[in-house]
Amino acid sequence: MGYLENIKHPSDLKALPESVLPELAEEIRATLINTLSEENPHSVGGHLGPNLGVVELTLALHRVFDTPKDKIIFDVGHQGYVHKMLTGRAGKLNTIRQYEGLNGFLLRTESEHDCYGAGHAGTALSAALGLAVGRDRRGSDESVICVAGDGAFTCGVSFEALNNVAGSTKRLIVVLNDNEWSIARNVGAIADYFNKIATNPLYFRLHEKTAQIVERIGGQMARNLGKKVEEGIKGLVLQNVIFEELGLRYYGPIDGHDLPRLIRAFEFLKTQNSPVLLHVLTQKGRGYEPAMKRPDKFHGLGRFNHDTGETVPSATPTYSEIFGKTLAKFANDNPAICAITGAMPTGTGLVHFANEHPDRYYDVGIAEEHAAIFASGLAIQGFRPFVAIYSTFMQRAYDMIVHDIALQHLNVALCMDRAGLSGDDGPTHHGLFDISFLRSIPGLIHMQPKDEDEFVDMLWTILHHDGPSAIRYPRGTGTGVTPKETPRLLEIGKAEVVREGTDVAILGLGNMLELALAAACQLEERGISAAVINPRWIKPLDTDLIEQYARNVRVLCTVEDHVLTNGFGSAVLEHLADAGLSPAAVVRVGWPDAFIEHGSVSVLRKKHGITPEAIVEKIVPHFSESLQQP
Amino acid sequence: MGYLENIKHPSDLKALPESVLPELAEEIRATLINTLSEENPHSVGGHLGPNLGVVELTLALHRVFDTPKDKIIFDVGHQGYVHKMLTGRAGKLNTIRQYEGLNGFLLRTESEHDCYGAGHAGTALSAALGLAVGRDRRGSDESVICVAGDGAFTCGVSFEALNNVAGSTKRLIVVLNDNEWSIARNVGAIADYFNKIATNPLYFRLHEKTAQIVERIGGQMARNLGKKVEEGIKGLVLQNVIFEELGLRYYGPIDGHDLPRLIRAFEFLKTQNSPVLLHVLTQKGRGYEPAMKRPDKFHGLGRFNHDTGETVPSATPTYSEIFGKTLAKFANDNPAICAITGAMPTGTGLVHFANEHPDRYYDVGIAEEHAAIFASGLAIQGFRPFVAIYSTFMQRAYDMIVHDIALQHLNVALCMDRAGLSGDDGPTHHGLFDISFLRSIPGLIHMQPKDEDEFVDMLWTILHHDGPSAIRYPRGTGTGVTPKETPRLLEIGKAEVVREGTDVAILGLGNMLELALAAACQLEERGISAAVINPRWIKPLDTDLIEQYARNVRVLCTVEDHVLTNGFGSAVLEHLADAGLSPAAVVRVGWPDAFIEHGSVSVLRKKHGITPEAIVEKIVPHFSESLQQP
Repeated sequence: MGYLENIKHPSDLKALPESVLPELAEEIRATLINTLSEENPHSVGGHLGPNLGVVELTLALHRVFDTPKDKIIFDVGHQGYVHKMLTGRAGKLNTIRQYEGLNGFLLRTESEHDCYGAGHAGTALSAALGLAVGRDRRGSDESVICVAGDGAFTCGVSFEALNNVAGSTKRLIVVLNDNEWSIARNVGAIADYFNKIATNPLYFRLHEKTAQIVERIGGQMARNLGKKVEEGIKGLVLQNVIFEELGLRYYGPIDGHDLPRLIRAFEFLKTQNSPVLLHVLTQKGRGYEPAMKRPDKFHGLGRFNHDTGETVPSATPTYSEIFGKTLAKFANDNPAICAITGAMPTGTGLVHFANEHPDRYYDVGIAEEHAAIFASGLAIQGFRPFVAIYSTFMQRAYDMIVHDIALQHLNVALCMDRAGLSGDDGPTHHGLFDISFLRSIPGLIHMQPKDEDEFVDMLWTILHHDGPSAIRYPRGTGTGVTPKETPRLLEIGKAEVVREGTDVAILGLGNMLELALAAACQLEERGISAAVINPRWIKPLDTDLIEQYARNVRVLCTVEDHVLTNGFGSAVLEHLADAGLSPAAVVRVGWPDAFIEHGSVSVLRKKHGITPEAIVEKIVPHFSESLQQP
Repeated sequence: MGYLENIKHPSDLKALPESVLPELAEEIRATLINTLSEENPHSVGGHLGPNLGVVELTLALHRVFDTPKDKIIFDVGHQGYVHKMLTGRAGKLNTIRQYEGLNGFLLRTESEHDCYGAGHAGTALSAALGLAVGRDRRGSDESVICVAGDGAFTCGVSFEALNNVAGSTKRLIVVLNDNEWSIARNVGAIADYFNKIATNPLYFRLHEKTAQIVERIGGQMARNLGKKVEEGIKGLVLQNVIFEELGLRYYGPIDGHDLPRLIRAFEFLKTQNSPVLLHVLTQKGRGYEPAMKRPDKFHGLGRFNHDTGETVPSATPTYSEIFGKTLAKFANDNPAICAITGAMPTGTGLVHFANEHPDRYYDVGIAEEHAAIFASGLAIQGFRPFVAIYSTFMQRAYDMIVHDIALQHLNVALCMDRAGLSGDDGPTHHGLFDISFLRSIPGLIHMQPKDEDEFVDMLWTILHHDGPSAIRYPRGTGTGVTPKETPRLLEIGKAEVVREGTDVAILGLGNMLELALAAACQLEERGISAAVINPRWIKPLDTDLIEQYARNVRVLCTVEDHVLTNGFGSAVLEHLADAGLSPAAVVRVGWPDAFIEHGSVSVLRKKHGITPEAIVEKIVPHFSESLQQP
């Protein structure tokens, strides 16, 4: 123990004797577990399982390759903690996912060793190909290594890249980190196929021989033996592997926790003059009993008890839980309801639906485009598909929402969890753009509930609506209200006046209603009478109500958990202009035109002016005159 | 000849003796060529090549399957003309792509035989899977057939679907219509792979045997023989075809112009209780010499001379041509410039770049997601990639524009041809949403030129800008101005006052400037003095200039070739609200919140109020008072 603190740069890792690396691996694992658990008082948790799975793999990569010269691209980047620890950031690991601390994924701005940032899955192979082709054009000689999980191969874009590899470069190393899981267990034919390879005794026998040869000839020697060796090894692996058909030489599968073997393999692959794919079998959560038992839970989680792995359950159900349970309940009486997720059964709460209606539950993999079109097909057959995808990942399905769902006016419900600021996960995960990209789509209604009870009413309303719909709701819990037993149909395009007032009308969209109410109280203390409106509908707007207030108040204020550009406030501005109404001022409160960093929601809201105080500050100046001259 | 006019329904086709079908095929071909050529005075051209290639395939499908009960999903839908002719629309073929005529793709609203609409590639397999799973759940027994070109397999979403087929249904027929082309010749490993199968003598020998067996046992008999037959045939095809690995039974390749064989094959496949893929080899442009010689040109084209296939070249170069040639010219002096297209070398004009700089030109297939990320990788290596994708197809890359390009602030230029109304192609192809989905992305500049000269200046400005950029420009030609020899750098965020005026300021974005100028003249005739501004920048706005006019005119008017919702006008409204400015009126002119039908640009502009007259009509009422009281 104690190696880690001396690793300030990957070269420090290379200076260690290979014999101590297993000890270092243990130290890394212990540090990961300690840092993300309650042992670290500041811990907000993180992606423990994926990182425990890639300790040896990451050690081997940094042992063989030289970042920042060599380019290692980690798909998604959630498995990059070990990489961060080996590239000078071990001392800051205890700040991960905290405001001003390390990001939970990879960002180019964080370190020169992070050559490509991510947060969404499936992008690494395309990015690596771009870097490799760029290298070839520049005539430099760095290695480009793409590390992608088997989950990435459920994403279409990985195949788009794969289709382009062989024609584009002769030097690219793809590491298939096969752990059988994305967040949930991987689904589909590709996962079955990887599993078939991994468990085929013939492959295993061959792999043993390959491995022996690679070990014997590894390193410098391999470089000298060149083509002859390469072909010798090639003869040992099976023909007709999909990757081979697509022009990548396939090696594997090898044990992803066998450090010496991994090192020899990379030393060999580094010398190859052909795109190669190394199939590595790893275990998610390796070395930590609770994480090995529950790979889904430990994919990413909040702080947990070090010894038991237990997390303190929230007393209040989250929007996700309510979503999954409500939909499952509705489905009891309605055989048309189907649910679709893109590898997120737990995150979206659909696990509850899956348990009760497994025959109507579809996990399509990390395949948002397919999810949207597949839902369209089901809708045409008379079903009511609910597609649960986080707001930020819904961006992947944008063209399909326009071209397949909305243009055909199909009964598909887009259920966007994590809409608004996502917090700890940072800029790749905030759901701050969905009003911008959805509101212009003809015929698509869009809504956001003020609380959990209204959320259930909205799901009920969607179920009875003829046409496509979208609903956004935030990460975590709402106000904590328990939904009533029997949901009610909401009138589409009808807002709710929550509080009467005569000087200002504050429209607080969804989770922002609480802030609007708090601001109204503060304004009242200053002698300003504020109405508060729960808009409910982003589209269609309640134009009557907005007009009514616009005619009577001095200031109309919109508050939204979304960027201000093309946001809810813009919808209000559009209508006011069209109706020829101009209150003295329209004040819009929301996120600025910038990528918002990671951190707790409260810290970030305060920093960026999404608080009752900030709302009040923006409204008061419009009354300063009248307040000064009572 | 003369069969076609009696086919009002697919059942009429089935009533014909098989022996006359070759004659019918010839009649269909002759009709297609005549109707799309100058022989038809109303012709606006269309997708001739793809339809000539699928005459026998479509005949066989409708001979064997029963639409609308059975569901045939054509990928993209541009090859659906023959299908339209066999489903009661032969008499209207001469209206195709014309206002109120047949759509050039498939729309569910056009016919009950069109079970799934499209216009963008790669969606058919996902849609078919949704329809098949829905059928299974409903317990009905219709066949679901997906007809997709080899080009569709360069789209990631096709693989997302493929990954889900085997686990989802036991009955799905996929027809791989392999003609080696999408719009341009197909690229990448998948195309090579299909070609390898198609040209492998071993496959061909086997296919002959398969075909003989299928012919002998086809039809009713196959149904009875069941599993035994199936396995007999299976034994004849090669193992380890990619589709087989993914759980689809692979049959083929067979000659896609051999009608009896196609019919027997479908009769056989119809009885199968397993997902199957039939690999069909067709020839784009089959039966029409000019189209066979130039498959790219005849993929889709305007009206042409029937005998020679020649089209009248436009005297004015299109934006696409200027784009390709300008970029090629810039690249002569700048080795960092790269160009990327998604299977659209001709459509985007990049063919000119490809000819001069083949080593820096990348056609990645119909793979917009990959194109965007691949560009990001190149940018990181110091290159300046220009990604040329039509506005409507850029929707596919939306998540990557946010997550890969903008978040990493990379020097990637998004060049969006066909921005604005696309016209004849209709709702799947209009580029009316890009301001909505791009303007909220932090750090992404976005612009639209008033004419060809400014277009070149903008490309030059992009080349010298540090950060991501987007440029939108319309289909076809601009004002016809010839770009000056040496482009000039434009100041980012600086608009141009084209005409001074004191009562109204009209901001005419890009190609709308002409309309704004015409409107200004008409207003002048009515005694209203109108300034006209060429905004140039959608983001960043020239806020100073807007403020200046907002303070001095009564009406601010925005005109844009984009939907009004979250459009350019909304950007102006946002700024006015933030600056606390309220001119008496802000009038926004643009496309309404609806999917716009197909038709000529002039007809559609007139219908939807995008004309100088419509602008004037919206402005004048705000002056009626002063005009009445001079």
